[in-house]
Amino acid sequence: MKALKERIMSEGRCLPGGILKVDVFINHQMGPVLMEEMAEEFVRRFEDVRVDKVLTIEASGIAPAIMVGYLLKKPVVFAKKNKPSTMGDFYVTKVFSFTKNREYDVCLSKAYVNEGDHVLFIDDFLANGNAAAAILDLMSQAGATISGMGFLIEKHFQAGGAMLRSSGIRVESLAIIDSLEDCRIRFKE
Amino acid sequence: MKALKERIMSEGRCLPGGILKVDVFINHQMGPVLMEEMAEEFVRRFEDVRVDKVLTIEASGIAPAIMVGYLLKKPVVFAKKNKPSTMGDFYVTKVFSFTKNREYDVCLSKAYVNEGDHVLFIDDFLANGNAAAAILDLMSQAGATISGMGFLIEKHFQAGGAMLRSSGIRVESLAIIDSLEDCRIRFKE
Repeated sequence: MKALKERIMSEGRCLPGGILKVDVFINHQMGPVLMEEMAEEFVRRFEDVRVDKVLTIEASGIAPAIMVGYLLKKPVVFAKKNKPSTMGDFYVTKVFSFTKNREYDVCLSKAYVNEGDHVLFIDDFLANGNAAAAILDLMSQAGATISGMGFLIEKHFQAGGAMLRSSGIRVESLAIIDSLEDCRIRFKE
Repeated sequence: MKALKERIMSEGRCLPGGILKVDVFINHQMGPVLMEEMAEEFVRRFEDVRVDKVLTIEASGIAPAIMVGYLLKKPVVFAKKNKPSTMGDFYVTKVFSFTKNREYDVCLSKAYVNEGDHVLFIDDFLANGNAAAAILDLMSQAGATISGMGFLIEKHFQAGGAMLRSSGIRVESLAIIDSLEDCRIRFKE
């Protein structure tokens, strides 16, 4: 998606170790107009699949997911990184975060994804695919079907995209980074 | 706001200890159409104040905040509950969460709120006002001005609303709960 790639080139920052910082418009400060345009693009790309619910993980996935849900007029559910004390029955799985270098639980109330639901997962980044794998596990526990997974930015040089696509998951990423070598941002054509 | 109050009455659940659970449409599953209507209501109520940025705290404030930011065409910033490893210079303060019974840091990059900015804070709940007090501290560190604070739901029987209003903060809450005694939801007229 052209507008996103241009924004990454103009405002993204590449740090040593394959880190792309986009917290000026995606995951700390957010540009709501671009966010809505990205949601429109997801709706276009997934227009041929059934979506009963939009699913994401807190926190950076919430903004694009609520915009997609608003356009589709479908409920949006966000999986939580800690079990809230007032939450009842829930599905739970574990995720290892490389950014934070620790494992954490991801929880989803059993009330909000049901057997037979067709779910569109939306998140900001696809890198190693750990969060996406956790979602696959939660949806398998729920007996729900993944209609597709949409990411704002995919790091194609990390394993997540290949893992998901080889599992038969429909993946749509709005900007695919081929390399961040030498702190230069190169997109996949 | 009528639509919100009706939704609270039909889908909210009151638990012992003054807890109002609205995770079916606000803070776990989210109803994006109502979310957008609530954002429109905030825009109406704050139309006379200057807003350079919309500010919230992860995670449940992000959905209403991004909707408000989209309507105002202004950047949205969410304060983070942990310092990300790749975050540079930041303001930090502490919040005690009664729900989680622990203290945690709230961080905000110095890059995204500047001296002289007029900031509209949006969050899902106002109860004891701990998160709001943390925001006042962060904005004071930044030299920014709070244009107002908007909450989806205010628990009027807890101290937060009085604390903010007596400090001269313009507070707008879309549904004000007067009492949850005997697990019955009563709104303030």
